[in-house]
Amino acid sequence: MSNRNIKIYKNILSANDQWSNKIKSILKEKNIRMYNIIGSPGSGKTTLLESILKNINSPERLCVLEGDVETANDAERLSKYDIQVSQMITSGGCHLEAQHIFTALNDFDLNNIKLIIIENVGNLVCPAEFDLGETAKIAVLSVTEGEDKPVKYPMLFREAKAVIITKVDLLPYLDYDLDKCINYIKNINYNIPIFKVSSKENKGIKELIDWII
Amino acid sequence: MSNRNIKIYKNILSANDQWSNKIKSILKEKNIRMYNIIGSPGSGKTTLLESILKNINSPERLCVLEGDVETANDAERLSKYDIQVSQMITSGGCHLEAQHIFTALNDFDLNNIKLIIIENVGNLVCPAEFDLGETAKIAVLSVTEGEDKPVKYPMLFREAKAVIITKVDLLPYLDYDLDKCINYIKNINYNIPIFKVSSKENKGIKELIDWII
Repeated sequence: MSNRNIKIYKNILSANDQWSNKIKSILKEKNIRMYNIIGSPGSGKTTLLESILKNINSPERLCVLEGDVETANDAERLSKYDIQVSQMITSGGCHLEAQHIFTALNDFDLNNIKLIIIENVGNLVCPAEFDLGETAKIAVLSVTEGEDKPVKYPMLFREAKAVIITKVDLLPYLDYDLDKCINYIKNINYNIPIFKVSSKENKGIKELIDWII
Repeated sequence: MSNRNIKIYKNILSANDQWSNKIKSILKEKNIRMYNIIGSPGSGKTTLLESILKNINSPERLCVLEGDVETANDAERLSKYDIQVSQMITSGGCHLEAQHIFTALNDFDLNNIKLIIIENVGNLVCPAEFDLGETAKIAVLSVTEGEDKPVKYPMLFREAKAVIITKVDLLPYLDYDLDKCINYIKNINYNIPIFKVSSKENKGIKELIDWII
C-alpha cells in the first residue's frame, strides 16, 4: 500500500506545481508579492493580520486569502478593513493547494494589488509541503506552544523565509526560554530573520511590515 | 485528479480499519482501555501526560505511545516515569494510523497493562479521521488558542468522547471567554464531558484521571 500512496502523492505534488508555476507567472507579470503564512491553530495568525492591516500604509493595495477547514470566521474578522479578502474552505482538507489559490486570484482586481497574504489552514505539517507560487512562506509560532516546535516540525522552518514569534506579551507568565527556541530555529535555518511580536501590545509589527513590503 | 484521490483515500481508510479492528480484538481480549489524545502542536499534551503520570495510582500498568513527525523528545520526557513508553516517528506524516499502533503494541507486555495513552501528532485535522482502535479519542485544546477552534475544526470535537481545556492558569492574562468556547463545543457535541485543567498548578487532573480509569 505504501508504495502506491507515495506514487499518488507525487502526482498530487506534480499537479500542484503546474498550478503554482501559473501563479508565479501572474505575480511576476503584475509585480505582486505573495506571502504564505503557516502556523498552528491558535498561534495568532489572524490577529497578526489585523495588526498588519492597522499599521500598514495603503492597505487597499493588499488582499488576503483565508484558508480554513470550516467557517468564514477569519474572513469576516478581516472584512471590516479596507482590503479585498476571500475565504477558501477546504471542507476537511488540512492544507491549501496551488489550484485553490489560482481560482481565488480570479476574484480579485490584481491591477491595483501590490501584496497578497495567504493565511493557510492551521497546521504545522502538511501546508509546508505545498508550493502555492508564493514569494515566501512565513512560519508563525506562539510562545505558548513551547520551545521545541521547530525541532519537531522542521520542514516548515527549513522552507520558510522568516519566522514570526507571536504573543511575546505572555512571556512573563510562561516557563518558556525564548533564546532556546531561537537556537532551535537557527540550527535548522541559520540566517532566517526572526520577528518577535505582540499583536496585543502592537510590538514588533512595524519591523515586520518593513520586511514584508 | 480529485476523484482518483478520493478513491485512494478511501483505500487508505479501509486498510486502516482492518488494522484498527485487530487492535480492538487485542484490547478486548486483554481488557485494556486505550485513549487517543489529539490537539494542536503546543497545546500541552505531553505536559498533561506528565501530570497524569505524577497523580495516577499504579502508573506501571500504563503505557504511552508517542507520535511525532520528528524527534523522540516526548518519549524521552516521559521515560523518567515508571511506565512503558514508545516513540513512533512519522517522518513527515501528519497523523498516526492503526498499523503504526498495531506494530508498536508488539513491543509491550500487554498482560500487565490496563491503560494505553496515545499522544497523536500535533494536528487538529488529520488525526481525527483515523480510527486507531481506541476506546475513545480525547480532544485537547489550550486557552491560548482562542475560543473558536471547535467551530473551525469540528470533526475532532464530533469524534471525541471528552475535551480537555488546558493552561487555564493563563486565563487572567488572556482576552479569552471560556464559556464561549464551551458553548461552541456543546453546539457540536452537547453531552461531551469537558475538563478544565492546569498542569502547571496541578488543577483538574484528578477529576480527569477519575474519568479515564
